[in-house]
Amino acid sequence: MRAVVMHTPGDVRVENRDDPTIIDQTDAIIRLTATCICGSDLWPYRGVEPVDHTNMGHEYVGVVEQIGTDVKTIKVGDFVVGSFVISDNSCEICQAGYPSKCVHAEFVSMTIGTQSELARIPYADGTLVATPGQPDADLIPSLLAASDVLGTGWFAAVAAEAGPGKVVAVVGDGAVGLMGVLAAKQLGAERIIVMSRHADRQTLAREFGATDIVEERGADGVARIKELTDGLGAHSVIEAVGTEESMLQAIRSTRGGGHVGFVGVAHEGLSLPLDELFFAEVHLLGGPAPVRRFLPDLIQRIWNREIDPGKVFDLTLPLEDAAEGYKAMDERRAIKVLLTI
Amino acid sequence: MRAVVMHTPGDVRVENRDDPTIIDQTDAIIRLTATCICGSDLWPYRGVEPVDHTNMGHEYVGVVEQIGTDVKTIKVGDFVVGSFVISDNSCEICQAGYPSKCVHAEFVSMTIGTQSELARIPYADGTLVATPGQPDADLIPSLLAASDVLGTGWFAAVAAEAGPGKVVAVVGDGAVGLMGVLAAKQLGAERIIVMSRHADRQTLAREFGATDIVEERGADGVARIKELTDGLGAHSVIEAVGTEESMLQAIRSTRGGGHVGFVGVAHEGLSLPLDELFFAEVHLLGGPAPVRRFLPDLIQRIWNREIDPGKVFDLTLPLEDAAEGYKAMDERRAIKVLLTI
Repeated sequence: MRAVVMHTPGDVRVENRDDPTIIDQTDAIIRLTATCICGSDLWPYRGVEPVDHTNMGHEYVGVVEQIGTDVKTIKVGDFVVGSFVISDNSCEICQAGYPSKCVHAEFVSMTIGTQSELARIPYADGTLVATPGQPDADLIPSLLAASDVLGTGWFAAVAAEAGPGKVVAVVGDGAVGLMGVLAAKQLGAERIIVMSRHADRQTLAREFGATDIVEERGADGVARIKELTDGLGAHSVIEAVGTEESMLQAIRSTRGGGHVGFVGVAHEGLSLPLDELFFAEVHLLGGPAPVRRFLPDLIQRIWNREIDPGKVFDLTLPLEDAAEGYKAMDERRAIKVLLTI
Repeated sequence: MRAVVMHTPGDVRVENRDDPTIIDQTDAIIRLTATCICGSDLWPYRGVEPVDHTNMGHEYVGVVEQIGTDVKTIKVGDFVVGSFVISDNSCEICQAGYPSKCVHAEFVSMTIGTQSELARIPYADGTLVATPGQPDADLIPSLLAASDVLGTGWFAAVAAEAGPGKVVAVVGDGAVGLMGVLAAKQLGAERIIVMSRHADRQTLAREFGATDIVEERGADGVARIKELTDGLGAHSVIEAVGTEESMLQAIRSTRGGGHVGFVGVAHEGLSLPLDELFFAEVHLLGGPAPVRRFLPDLIQRIWNREIDPGKVFDLTLPLEDAAEGYKAMDERRAIKVLLTI
């Protein structure tokens, strides 16, 4: 099969790899219909995270080609959407709503890689969700989005307790931040403020439901959020960047007793001042999104054409052109790149 | 009036000060019945926080001696318990349950000091709660505890979502940690694990409801908590120390999706690794406890003799001997010192 491999930072190639096979009887092999490039794939691309001939990718939709004998709920021929974290969906942690912390959790990006024609998905019953039928082609981007970027934005909004009567602020106007806007809107937020300086992203944010744009950053950005909220700060803040600055921006923009949902992937070496965390007195919840929890609901909303998260993909390329896709995202010429297979 | 003044770290004296007077018409002047020394008073005592001829103390019970013309719910002669943070109890933040972040919030320790015969309490209606009548003498320690140490432990347990079916772990066996045990028990926790190496504190923890004691610390302590919880970690963890080590101990002892309530006062210069916070995926809530929210309930429980938090005071001294009280706590000869007036 063909697969995207990052040799070293910035060196992305499409190469031949052996087709995956069933290893454990809870596995499924899926033939991918589409995959995509994640903002987090840019970390190794930019040399911020180590990379060495790594199979890339962790977002995926496709058709089940083969299943192990222990797979019960997923059938050959099903069109499936999977989470970027493997989960059994049956352990105590999964049942409590945190499949991304499943006792069998495994990052697809670390061990599998789904920027490829085929992929072996462990714990298929617990990780994959079948769509109600074979999807129309125009639904594919949105279903693919559910695999991570939508599911992650949704988790951030849920963690931030976005909902009716709430003012939600979003730090980060990348694909995840934009999905956070969409989620906050769906969850009924009264007002959604996006911190963004890019005209194209502002436009998309407004399409997804943003009511206000704040271009200021740092202390000025916080002051502007306070101005818009009677001096109190937002009830709910979504952090979708993953730096110290963005976390502090989020915490400082939240009112006392408010909620921060943080999903920007944090890197080793970053830290938060503990006294600021203490005196801010805000709820914090973040981490790798428990996408599997939300998948059935998100798939149904997409199937019903209630939401169109696929709009976040502003560049579509064939898998063979993955290198150009990485380059376009790195240079901010694209918000998010879909790869067709 | 007589008042405790800390001249420099370790130099505690009882001196004469002018009696306080009504400044704003929302003020009340109270004559203290009892006050106490807080673990956080040891920070300046040990030179960790700056101090310069500071009026000490922020925990207090007493009788209202005078009120401003705008005070409506508190009357002269009422026996009152007050929070260690001034609050109007009417702003949007107070109404949402976070009086410690009130738009008029002010730390009693910073500007007032209640290790004294009299104290001026701003926003008396919003800060003080009157007891149902004049309390029996034996209830005074427990009512005093509600002012901070009990209210803070209670908040930590609520923030950690201690409750039925939950395993709660408590990091820190000081007065606040012990009150966290009491609170977790009252909130219906199934199992309460205290991390403690001091026999006297272990005994008190068991009296308050602890079911298990863990003497190990660091990685061994975390491993022990995991052993006691099917390898998953506790549902709810109370952090009651305020160091980097104790915060990491708490976070690492919590299962994915679980809750950490942190109330140990964090100091400038401490920090938390952001990547660990991210990948732990636990709920975090902490800060100065919104004691005022809990006071009516806590007073009633004490009045009904359902709880006896006053047991946390293991040394009682007259105000004049405050210096000895500080010394006893600093040397860990006392868990918490009550000062009679």
